[in-house]
Formats: sequence, structure tokens, C-alpha cells
Amino acid sequence: MPIAADILEALRLVLRRGTLILAVLGTLRAEQYGYSLKTRLGEAGVEIDEGALYPMLRRLETQGLLVSEWREEGKRKKRFYRLSDDGAAALAQLTAEWRAMNGALETILPEHGLKKEGGQ
Amino acid sequence: MPIAADILEALRLVLRRGTLILAVLGTLRAEQYGYSLKTRLGEAGVEIDEGALYPMLRRLETQGLLVSEWREEGKRKKRFYRLSDDGAAALAQLTAEWRAMNGALETILPEHGLKKEGGQ
Repeated sequence: MPIAADILEALRLVLRRGTLILAVLGTLRAEQYGYSLKTRLGEAGVEIDEGALYPMLRRLETQGLLVSEWREEGKRKKRFYRLSDDGAAALAQLTAEWRAMNGALETILPEHGLKKEGGQ
Repeated sequence: MPIAADILEALRLVLRRGTLILAVLGTLRAEQYGYSLKTRLGEAGVEIDEGALYPMLRRLETQGLLVSEWREEGKRKKRFYRLSDDGAAALAQLTAEWRAMNGALETILPEHGLKKEGGQ
């Protein structure tokens, strides 16, 4: 193993954290409950533990970016989340920022992910 | 103002943090000292305060991703940083991760940054 696994894992988490928030806000332009949100994210290729997703939803609601509502569906009460107006404004700004950072990174990073030769 | 400035700023920082590390590692495939690194990042469109850059460099060196060396250049001693072999391996993995997350986000986020109409 070329690098301590915990260091690499910590860096991956830092890298994921911001984009996870973007992914959640972007998905919640359409109302979802927790499980349907997790499913949609997974379909898009974004894996997230429920142990991370639910605290994030509560935090984003506390910050005023999401609104939620308990409703019964399929004989079970579910908490439905969607983007607030403030959340939509934040999503617009963060998306623009993300695109700008990506443009910068594309000039810095090599085309094909810097694969090392013979690295098995 | 549609959303508390400090909340938006905190989200921007979270979003930037991971990509800043990628930008620094990617730039340090070629040796740089602090100021030349900051200049190259700026040229690529990545602004970073020295107050954030220098602690990040020390942290990445402690983690074994960078190596550094003091050398005299232009009659001043400067600390030169470059990617270690472990850093190159980490950069390869993080770049692949970043590309995968971007691919997922492109399917989630709207084309043109979700600009709100009439939002002045």
C-alpha cells in the first residue's frame, strides 16, 4: 500500500463532502423522502450512508436551505424534503463556484487521472 | 440577501477545501516554493490565501504526500515543495474520484448553473 489508508480516506472524505452537499441540494429541487433521495443519488452514482445523509438533511434544514414536511405515504409517515427558495439561490451560487473550480482543476490535472504505470 | 452570508460562505469553503488539495497536489508535480505555487494556482484560476496555503503544505508534508527542501535562490532561502511518490499515488486516486463525482453531479445539476430569473 503506497500511502496510509487513513490519510487517503480522510482526503477522499474532504473531497466528497462539498460535492455531496451539491448533489443533495440539486436532487431536492424535486421533493424526496430520505430513502427515495438516497436511491436517486445512488442512481446518479453518488453513494452516501444514511448515517451521513440524515444529519446532513437536518443541518441543511436548520440553515434554511431545505424545508420538510411529514406526510403519510403507503401507510407510513415519511418526512419529505425539498429545496427552499434560499436553498435554490445557494445551489445556483455553489454550482457556479463548482464549475469555476472544475475549470481551474482541468487546467491543472492531467487528462487521464495520472495513472501510474505498473501499479498493481 | 436571500441567505445568511455566513452559511453560504461556510458551504463555499467546504466545497473549495477538497478541490484546493487536488489543485495543490496537481501543481506540485513540478517543484515550487510557496509564492511561485500561489502564483501558478492563481494563473489557473485558484485563489488561496497564504494563511491557508502554508498550513496545508505543512499538513500534506506531514502526511507524506509532499517533500520539501530549503535552498537558496536569488539570495534568499526558500522552501521548495514537490509531490512525493505517495503523493503522486494519492493524486491519481483522488483525481479519479473527483472525475467520478463530477460525472455524477453533471447528471444531477442543471446545465447553466440554475440562475434564478429576475434575481437582482
